[in-house]
Amino acid sequence: MNASAPLDGLTVLEISSFVAAPLGGLTLAQLGADVIRIDPVGGRADLGRWPLAPSGTSLYWTGLNKGKRSVTLNFGDAEGRRLLGGLLAASGPGGGIVLTNARQDWLAYPALARIRADLIHLRIQGHRDGRAAVDYTVNAATGFPLITGPEGLEGPVNHVLPAWDVTCGLYAAIGLLAAERRRQRTGAGSAITLALADVALAVAGHLGFLAQAQVTGTDRPRIGNHLYGGLARDFRTADGERVMVVALTRRHFADLAAVTGLAGTLAGLEQLLGADFGEEGDRYRHRKVITALLEPWFADRTAAAVERDLTGTSVLWSRYRRFTDLAADGTLAASPLLHQITQPGVGPLLAPGSPLAMDGTAGPDPAPELGADNAAVLTGLLGLSAADIRALADRGIIGGS
Amino acid sequence: MNASAPLDGLTVLEISSFVAAPLGGLTLAQLGADVIRIDPVGGRADLGRWPLAPSGTSLYWTGLNKGKRSVTLNFGDAEGRRLLGGLLAASGPGGGIVLTNARQDWLAYPALARIRADLIHLRIQGHRDGRAAVDYTVNAATGFPLITGPEGLEGPVNHVLPAWDVTCGLYAAIGLLAAERRRQRTGAGSAITLALADVALAVAGHLGFLAQAQVTGTDRPRIGNHLYGGLARDFRTADGERVMVVALTRRHFADLAAVTGLAGTLAGLEQLLGADFGEEGDRYRHRKVITALLEPWFADRTAAAVERDLTGTSVLWSRYRRFTDLAADGTLAASPLLHQITQPGVGPLLAPGSPLAMDGTAGPDPAPELGADNAAVLTGLLGLSAADIRALADRGIIGGS
Repeated sequence: MNASAPLDGLTVLEISSFVAAPLGGLTLAQLGADVIRIDPVGGRADLGRWPLAPSGTSLYWTGLNKGKRSVTLNFGDAEGRRLLGGLLAASGPGGGIVLTNARQDWLAYPALARIRADLIHLRIQGHRDGRAAVDYTVNAATGFPLITGPEGLEGPVNHVLPAWDVTCGLYAAIGLLAAERRRQRTGAGSAITLALADVALAVAGHLGFLAQAQVTGTDRPRIGNHLYGGLARDFRTADGERVMVVALTRRHFADLAAVTGLAGTLAGLEQLLGADFGEEGDRYRHRKVITALLEPWFADRTAAAVERDLTGTSVLWSRYRRFTDLAADGTLAASPLLHQITQPGVGPLLAPGSPLAMDGTAGPDPAPELGADNAAVLTGLLGLSAADIRALADRGIIGGS
Repeated sequence: MNASAPLDGLTVLEISSFVAAPLGGLTLAQLGADVIRIDPVGGRADLGRWPLAPSGTSLYWTGLNKGKRSVTLNFGDAEGRRLLGGLLAASGPGGGIVLTNARQDWLAYPALARIRADLIHLRIQGHRDGRAAVDYTVNAATGFPLITGPEGLEGPVNHVLPAWDVTCGLYAAIGLLAAERRRQRTGAGSAITLALADVALAVAGHLGFLAQAQVTGTDRPRIGNHLYGGLARDFRTADGERVMVVALTRRHFADLAAVTGLAGTLAGLEQLLGADFGEEGDRYRHRKVITALLEPWFADRTAAAVERDLTGTSVLWSRYRRFTDLAADGTLAASPLLHQITQPGVGPLLAPGSPLAMDGTAGPDPAPELGADNAAVLTGLLGLSAADIRALADRGIIGGS
């Protein structure tokens, strides 16, 4: 094995905002790429996005830009735009890579490929035809909100996790790595378009939602916290907590029946109903009666007692937690994923590195302050002197430091 | 530019089930990798997962295994296990790559690295310490269900989209590509562990949820379909439809105020409240009064009239749709992402390719039938004869064809 970072030598220029493009860059940075986020002087619209630290620093922006370098250029001035082109030209054999969700023509593939013929350029956009969209509109358009939430509820339930933005950002990282692999083999660059709406539709298709609608002409019902096609649900415990319990396989279900003392009752019920609870389909069809029989077992026990009894069985389960629970109960501190960083504008903080546990990766680095790397990047890549950089800042071509 | 597939020459052995590992393999396959899914004879527990076609074929399994080759080996027999090792050894310079969520020791890195020293091995597991978990338990443990759903609702709201499985599968694809890039540079393989629980915690951290809990000691409130820190919500139209409307920026909000004829009213309200609705924070703080003022405009109009009036403005919006709407209204047929395939066991179907629109990628291929590629793979990689293959099938070492 080896200690070099997986993406050692890769350099990405990221001209981005909000979630998807920054998460794509973050993912590559946490595997060792040099990701330089280039913003207009003063930053983009995501710079102050909630949640905020008491100082006003955005916990959202700092979370999504960890381990990157930050450069600020005056995009409105031809000289600022030329500096971006210069960085692209100077970014080395593992560079020439642009990740963006910006829509300006001078940041598009045709313009930048004139600077570097082997350019790899990935643009994230709302729809493939260029129309704008964001996670919340794409989610509404795709079908999930109308089957999410309690049975009988009227109207849509939006997700809180911006799942399409997250998914899109990871697809972007995949697209850049795939294109760079091809460039190493053939020398050719790539122009890649990635539409948020396509991401949602692709995932809905891969998971069978679109096929179900096409083949059966029906949508899944809104079934609350039950699992479609299986047996899983939340239960309330004696102390008012909630636990999620999942019996995916025959073995899980047998263990759940045994631990709750309901093996005989459930076997009798199978006979009465002519069902086979060893089959996932029958567990799903009879989910309401099965879970109604299970409810009292949970309602009679504290969450701690549930934990004691289910531990050691194959049953999959978890308490429901709040983010503040994870911070307060030591979960975050105990996780090998999170490391203490000192985030400018925020202070000490437990922050996650890459969930890909592999050698050559380190813990998370903090996010830069906006424009913090102007001098280092312009000197390192373009060879500018301190006096050059001061002059550029004085003339407003780059942000002040 | 060029026409070779981005991942031409990459060969992945996938020993997988359910969503995450199969989606990782699918993602690589749709970019041109040769992904060979290897199952025990008879298939794994996901083979019959709902939703089902009328024939009983799983729309879930076929959705997640498009464009792969399928091999079935008797994992319980030493000769079947040796065949897997042989395929690994014979998979070429772009091979030696294993993607799995299986937990058997003989499929783990140490055992398989004896067959191929440059092995890249990625194992998906529930927790990093090896404890089992699935999307639905990880989601409960992470904090999202208790802040999802209508304000005032008691108890958790689970997601229907298995967002952590999807995210995990994409991280797996990234990990394999990053490791293969390093192997090309250094010759060294990689042992990669990817825990579903880490994926959820990493994303919650990157998006600021964990920092908010740590820094402010508070969780986000449950705010229904409002957008935290911004102005967005669903509205009901005169014909009983719902539309999602998002005003992320000052311009979006100004356009929304203008098109609804409320610019003067909202400006007056700003003065009354001492607020600046040009600021995202103030739009969020006053979201209820602002959206209450907007409601009648939507309630007085059909969805078609809303569409007519909002088109051409910067306001981000969408109707809420069902999956069956997308199938029935031509959305799927019109999308360049989806192509008609003929899926064995299902029939003709519109299915998505990769959302990464780049040259060298093609439309989706159907999923194989289980074991359909036994002969082709064993002949192509191991040079077995038709008689050898018949004998293996007769002895139950490989699945019948």
